Amino acid sequence: MEFREAMTKPGMLYGVGLGPGDPELLTLKAHRLISKARVIAYPAPDDGESFARAIAAEFIPENALEIPIVVPMRVERFPAKSVYDKAAEDIAHVLREGEDVVTLCEGDPFFYGSFMYLFERLGGRFPCEIVPGVTSLTACASRLQRPLTSRNDVLTVIPGPLPDDEIRRRIEDAQAIAIMKVGRHLSRLKSLLADMGLLSHAGYVERATLPSENVVPLARLEVDAAPYFSMILIYKGDEAWMLPPQFSS
Amino acid sequence: MEFREAMTKPGMLYGVGLGPGDPELLTLKAHRLISKARVIAYPAPDDGESFARAIAAEFIPENALEIPIVVPMRVERFPAKSVYDKAAEDIAHVLREGEDVVTLCEGDPFFYGSFMYLFERLGGRFPCEIVPGVTSLTACASRLQRPLTSRNDVLTVIPGPLPDDEIRRRIEDAQAIAIMKVGRHLSRLKSLLADMGLLSHAGYVERATLPSENVVPLARLEVDAAPYFSMILIYKGDEAWMLPPQFSS
Ligand SMILES: C[S@@+](CC[C@H](N)C(=O)[O-])C[C@H]1O[C@@H](n2cnc3c(N)ncnc32)[C@H](O)[C@@H]1O
Ligand SMILES: C[S@@+](CC[C@H](N)C(=O)[O-])C[C@H]1O[C@@H](n2cnc3c(N)ncnc32)[C@H](O)[C@@H]1O
Repeated sequence: MEFREAMTKPGMLYGVGLGPGDPELLTLKAHRLISKARVIAYPAPDDGESFARAIAAEFIPENALEIPIVVPMRVERFPAKSVYDKAAEDIAHVLREGEDVVTLCEGDPFFYGSFMYLFERLGGRFPCEIVPGVTSLTACASRLQRPLTSRNDVLTVIPGPLPDDEIRRRIEDAQAIAIMKVGRHLSRLKSLLADMGLLSHAGYVERATLPSENVVPLARLEVDAAPYFSMILIYKGDEAWMLPPQFSS
Repeated sequence: MEFREAMTKPGMLYGVGLGPGDPELLTLKAHRLISKARVIAYPAPDDGESFARAIAAEFIPENALEIPIVVPMRVERFPAKSVYDKAAEDIAHVLREGEDVVTLCEGDPFFYGSFMYLFERLGGRFPCEIVPGVTSLTACASRLQRPLTSRNDVLTVIPGPLPDDEIRRRIEDAQAIAIMKVGRHLSRLKSLLADMGLLSHAGYVERATLPSENVVPLARLEVDAAPYFSMILIYKGDEAWMLPPQFSS
């Protein structure tokens, strides 16, 4: 018996995109992998339910081993390094025993997703497959009923926490613009867009495709802060933001 | 009997994203709508099979009425206006009779998709629902096994037909870059990236998630033209493009 054969073949690390929130926006592949999974990992806040787990909940086998990765939510920008170090070692342990680990990722794993923190720790050490998912970007466009990009448009995706002057310059320079991570930056972003004469070209979507979804022209939004799961899409072009049929009454 | 009640309720126009090519990357919702559809529309080239139809083929009911929208492929940039005028009227006819029409869209319908040409003709006149799909953008990132964007990265999506100096400026100005519609622009784009010192930071993906897929570091690609379904992703950052595990042997 050779040494190679005696070693257990390591398990596969799957990073599985779940789409923006509606469980029906899982891909068939995500559905298959999750419903057959024996070990499932997912990010979870320290003070509530995991959004990723909630999206996939109805498909998770009852007897699956679950590895929640509890990330403190207070620090907005940088994930606690030690949390991911620890989670990566827990997952590595399972992979070394030859078990696959299905990691649940809201939206797409590689589109501003926290899965990258696991991937940078484990990607080189274990076989890995990324299953792409529907991003919040196109989900929001679909809910606003406005095409995001066409023909030779340049699309720029801008994180809301960036400084005003940078956001302004980037909006001026693109044909299609998405602002992610709006949250507490909402009123600052609204003022900026008003100042640029673009308020009537902007749509706002919060919790796209969930029952609690809110979809409105940004100019009609009368609150000062947005939840974490919110986005602004800006449509340049000759005419102002034309109300899609669902807002015209 | 009132007049209102005598009128047939119009059908729903669905724009359904199919993802990048692997039929398993359809969403559960796309799968449900397609497998129950009575009328299905899709773009088709005048000289071959429809890619959208091919992705969904195994799920299309045998007795569904099919409306191919035959678009001449010679004109790369602008779709024949009259083709869409005619297709929109054919579809309007079906919708007016109260039948839903499921339109198949490669990737996501609103991400550089030709569905917008139907939507701009029919969106205001009939009830419409867009079902988002996995875009080629994140599908290519998943196949390259490199996160597309993280933290506060700015992502810019650039159509390859744009002029060199514009592409150069936009690449310099973003952290994450995707170049779509590479096709016959491949060698020009490769020279540009080499000149910018970014060739070793670029990945190339053709026909992502299909059996004929090709995924390579751009520097290793030794042809002058790419097929239509190809994309370049550029990863800036301190280190050069680090070979993902699948290329390191
Ligand atoms: C850390 S990023 C994760 C993005 C995710 N991986 C994706 O592919 O959509 C979180 C940001 O995505 C956006 N987002 C995610 N889900 C959303 C939803 N259902 N509705 C609106 N925005 C959403 C928000 O801008 C939020 O601040
Ligand atoms: C007209 S756009 C359609 C994009 C599509 N609606 C989507 O959401 O991905 C066509 C371009 O998308 C990219 N593309 C689409 N499918 C692809 C695939 N399977 N592999 C690589 N690139 C693809 C190529 O850059 C191609 O030139």
